Amino acid sequence: MNKTIGFIGLGVMGKSMAGHLLDAGHTLHVYTRTREKAADLLARGAVWEDSPAAIAQACDIVFTIVGFPQDVDKVYLGDNGLVANAKPDAILVDMTTSKPDLAVRIAAAVAARGGRALDAPVSGGDKGAREGTLSIMVGGDRVAFDAVLPLFEIMGKNIVYQGLAGSGQHCKLCNQIAIASNMLGVCEAIAYARQAGLDPETVLKSISAGAAGSWSLSNLAPRMLAGNFEPGFYVKHFIKDMAIAAESADGLRLDTPGLDLALALYRKLAAAGCEDDGTQALYKLYA
Amino acid sequence: MNKTIGFIGLGVMGKSMAGHLLDAGHTLHVYTRTREKAADLLARGAVWEDSPAAIAQACDIVFTIVGFPQDVDKVYLGDNGLVANAKPDAILVDMTTSKPDLAVRIAAAVAARGGRALDAPVSGGDKGAREGTLSIMVGGDRVAFDAVLPLFEIMGKNIVYQGLAGSGQHCKLCNQIAIASNMLGVCEAIAYARQAGLDPETVLKSISAGAAGSWSLSNLAPRMLAGNFEPGFYVKHFIKDMAIAAESADGLRLDTPGLDLALALYRKLAAAGCEDDGTQALYKLYA
Repeated sequence: MNKTIGFIGLGVMGKSMAGHLLDAGHTLHVYTRTREKAADLLARGAVWEDSPAAIAQACDIVFTIVGFPQDVDKVYLGDNGLVANAKPDAILVDMTTSKPDLAVRIAAAVAARGGRALDAPVSGGDKGAREGTLSIMVGGDRVAFDAVLPLFEIMGKNIVYQGLAGSGQHCKLCNQIAIASNMLGVCEAIAYARQAGLDPETVLKSISAGAAGSWSLSNLAPRMLAGNFEPGFYVKHFIKDMAIAAESADGLRLDTPGLDLALALYRKLAAAGCEDDGTQALYKLYA
Repeated sequence: MNKTIGFIGLGVMGKSMAGHLLDAGHTLHVYTRTREKAADLLARGAVWEDSPAAIAQACDIVFTIVGFPQDVDKVYLGDNGLVANAKPDAILVDMTTSKPDLAVRIAAAVAARGGRALDAPVSGGDKGAREGTLSIMVGGDRVAFDAVLPLFEIMGKNIVYQGLAGSGQHCKLCNQIAIASNMLGVCEAIAYARQAGLDPETVLKSISAGAAGSWSLSNLAPRMLAGNFEPGFYVKHFIKDMAIAAESADGLRLDTPGLDLALALYRKLAAAGCEDDGTQALYKLYA
């Protein structure tokens, strides 16, 4: 593929993902709000651009992974944004976890100018980004998906096309919804074990491999027990995702009492000053 | 081991477990409320006894797996029960999921007569019982645990000593607490996927292997989607277990909002006539 590739958003996730594209030999133009975050990639051959508009003018395929839906909105639909400045046959790929209806609006705006859009949020965290093992959930133009797939394969392992525009975001919200309630179960099981005078590590030996088993129980419960609340995935970002999911579920007229409870508890945790902790810090509310 | 073994409770679980002991060549005396349930085992060489008392008088080691804590209470502490009639050096092993404080009372009563008790509830369901792959969580006398371990190994695979009397029950409650909230997440994720117009099976391909992954998501979500609500594990039994866990958490002064929510929703499901469904029927409340 001799396309020029753009990458916007060089946070913990984006920096690793862009690095893999560079390592694979692609020409990469980059932009991020805080230029220092690009230094390492620029030293490895990436080309700096001063704005989303400049990225759009220079590139055939653009990936974005920024913070919040309002950032996505600005990068894509702002005056100096990607859509207004994109090449006629551009493919624009947002990998931020964001709102499904915003993904639909972006796809329509891109299509109106002759381009193609994908919403392609990821899961797997900083570790998955670093190791190129992200799960990528993709919605939008199928032709664009097929064209971009070889690039997705450089950044991830489990890449699944979910359907029309917004479907990648909807799928990611399903992922967060499943995690949300399970975090309550993991915290409560561990807190109960401790309160009942059991050795929680011994309890994990009994329950992790059976019907109570989950990724969170195996990976986060040990961190809770060790008092390690370092962020793998930030409380504040999980709250953002759950809030989007709750709002979206509401729009779909679906009751999600487990999600609502988890969101309320995580907001309580954030209000207690823990928004920059990892999601396993929910255990603090129980301990 | 040339001990005579007793087995009380030949429901779906007990029948398979007792069968494995027979197959391993042990002499097995059995009792269960409904004698017809013993027919198959009697045909294979088991010896019928007419009461828990008769089992106690005949056997060195007795296993029980009955329905509810009140059944455990009666079988052990009733006039015609195990404790009052046990051999001086008997080992009595309750594998029912029951109340930790009842396990402690039984252990004290058995010890007062010179015997030893274990509380050893299991997880793994009818399949685990049939295949001899149950997880067995054991509390009580350590010497008794070591003596019974070879028999546990005939019935299960993941056998963990959790501590003093009641610890097996506490551990099983941790297991159920972890499952309870996770069931909400699984149902809500699947219901959201469907409501958003995604193909839920395709969503499972994206989310089952990552941070949202769990035994319930992998094993029960497909049954929900297939409309298969046959019991692996009954709603009514899960409600029993969650109610014991909630009461016990209350006694330990531990808030368990996720468990409380799950219990309330499962009671709603039972009130709608679904108590004999499998636990995956919770999805009906969302569908």
